[in-house]
Amino acid sequence: MKHMKAEANNIFTRPQTKWSLGAGMQGDIVISSRLRLARNLKNIPFPHRLNEAGQKEVLNAVSSAIPNLEKKTKRSYFYMTLAELTSLQRKMLVEKHLISPQFAQSRIDSALAIRQDEAVSIMVNEEDHLRIQCLLPAFSLEDAWKTANDVDDALAGKLEFAFDEQLGYLTACPTNLGTGLRASAMLHLPALVMSKKADSIFSSLPKLGLTVRGIYGEGTSAIGNLFQVSNEITLGRSEEDIIIHLQSVVMQLVEQERQARRIIQKEYDVLLYDNIWRAYGILSQARSLDAQEMMERLSLLRLGLDLGIFAGITHNKINELMIAGQDAFLQSANNGESNPQKLNWERAALVRKTLSETMEVK
Amino acid sequence: MKHMKAEANNIFTRPQTKWSLGAGMQGDIVISSRLRLARNLKNIPFPHRLNEAGQKEVLNAVSSAIPNLEKKTKRSYFYMTLAELTSLQRKMLVEKHLISPQFAQSRIDSALAIRQDEAVSIMVNEEDHLRIQCLLPAFSLEDAWKTANDVDDALAGKLEFAFDEQLGYLTACPTNLGTGLRASAMLHLPALVMSKKADSIFSSLPKLGLTVRGIYGEGTSAIGNLFQVSNEITLGRSEEDIIIHLQSVVMQLVEQERQARRIIQKEYDVLLYDNIWRAYGILSQARSLDAQEMMERLSLLRLGLDLGIFAGITHNKINELMIAGQDAFLQSANNGESNPQKLNWERAALVRKTLSETMEVK
Repeated sequence: MKHMKAEANNIFTRPQTKWSLGAGMQGDIVISSRLRLARNLKNIPFPHRLNEAGQKEVLNAVSSAIPNLEKKTKRSYFYMTLAELTSLQRKMLVEKHLISPQFAQSRIDSALAIRQDEAVSIMVNEEDHLRIQCLLPAFSLEDAWKTANDVDDALAGKLEFAFDEQLGYLTACPTNLGTGLRASAMLHLPALVMSKKADSIFSSLPKLGLTVRGIYGEGTSAIGNLFQVSNEITLGRSEEDIIIHLQSVVMQLVEQERQARRIIQKEYDVLLYDNIWRAYGILSQARSLDAQEMMERLSLLRLGLDLGIFAGITHNKINELMIAGQDAFLQSANNGESNPQKLNWERAALVRKTLSETMEVK
Repeated sequence: MKHMKAEANNIFTRPQTKWSLGAGMQGDIVISSRLRLARNLKNIPFPHRLNEAGQKEVLNAVSSAIPNLEKKTKRSYFYMTLAELTSLQRKMLVEKHLISPQFAQSRIDSALAIRQDEAVSIMVNEEDHLRIQCLLPAFSLEDAWKTANDVDDALAGKLEFAFDEQLGYLTACPTNLGTGLRASAMLHLPALVMSKKADSIFSSLPKLGLTVRGIYGEGTSAIGNLFQVSNEITLGRSEEDIIIHLQSVVMQLVEQERQARRIIQKEYDVLLYDNIWRAYGILSQARSLDAQEMMERLSLLRLGLDLGIFAGITHNKINELMIAGQDAFLQSANNGESNPQKLNWERAALVRKTLSETMEVK
């Protein structure tokens, strides 16, 4: 277990992270797959009802369990308390999707363990004592489940989790009771949005026990045609059932997106190509870009790549821009510059540089 | 005097024309200078009250006078009746600013004499029997006046114009009475528009006996930050006075535009540069452009050239695009293609090709 200065840590210097780097099944449409388990220590109140001593007790218990986790899973972890992270560093972790926006603003004693390759992050004293997250590239819910499950098992070797024979794992919020499992896939669905089918499809998901969230999780909005589809039900079904069910719905969404792409290529034709090329024209020449516009235009660039209009740039490079081009990463890369206008200028410069280095435009 | 098939005439094959090609004083802001004289033949009713025989009489009289005009001015003219021009060819002449939109739709026997270099066009049976127009590049009102005056003198050697000692030249519409002269300059005033000063400046022009029109003359709207400033008063002042007065106001407008450019460069800075670069990005990548958008984006491209942001492309090349990218020229260059969507596609292709051949982007 390494407890190193944040400044020296790749997590805060590299905009690349596990999910942004890999390739995998359906990787053109499924950006990433995420699995998280909510766990709480037995006989200790949930974080929101925990006093300072109790908060420290949880931190101590979890940090003591990490070496065993490392040994069992043969993986190294960085451990850091939230107190030692600046507000900027916390935001960078949100931008990498390694922690939740809520956790970044935590006012209680909290901590974080991140596997060296950034595939696993364990939030300590978030809404629950432990939130074990595994985040992998592309369509890999099963791998994410196996990985999170191994982490869970290894931690359970040293920590006693609150568990009820009837209810399953006990959690601070009843919506997580039972398996404590939330699985989700981040999907890029521009064609369903363009053909105005996304809303009606999404409105049918709750009936299937699923829900759609924005790109930074609960309470955040969809941007750049990216949608996080996850299970709503955690109780009364096995982990495997939840995952198999989500997998099948995700595959249906992927198929619907592919079909919508075929249709818009025929029906919108020039208009679609025009939009995609304009997005490229703007990204490659603009001198000022806000984060939202960048995400929207990158969505079209990604679609152009998928449709074979562009070459040179890769899905991974676009993922990287989606992290490196966010405020905190930009701010960090530019000596703490926090003036929004200047960040927009730097964002545009970063995007221009990346495109000029990668794009092969016929 | 050549009376050749329209198809074989450069006028309808080259998008370049006299005013689009030349350089000259204040050529960055003053696109072109125009002078026209309204003349009518003595003892013949004005065109709108003229029967068919009378219309032909006017045409015969004018065409008979052209050889003398050519001899006196040592310049060749093409002569064509409007009846022999297709609707598309008439529109092309409007797009070159060689005839008025009203004349293009004339239903009476009309004709047109165009000097070989396209600097002078004489409309026969427009609102008046003769409309002598001289259109030159940049700020050249005096040259345009001299040229039109020479044409007028040469024609007067063969034709007797309706003239009254008290009133001067008699015209169909009393607003042209006296000198029959309308002088105008086409100005590119993006900085005055951006800094929202254009409206108040233009509203002060009528007090000075001047007026602002759109780019195709009376009743057309301003587009691409291009404005045609011309004299309103034709009576009670000498031709020289009218021209000197217009010249001085145009020089003031040019100075105000230059000052506004200095201010927006300071105050808008990133925003201005961003707008200019985005215009370039869109023009160089869009797959579909309508004429209005092309004109608006070309205005920013021209401004970028003026501000030293771009190199490679010239003012003349932008002028040429402003003609070649209009519907009729595009249609003619694409085998008569008249589907608006396809014309937008061809327009975008033309602009892309031109920019890729000329622009030197750092």
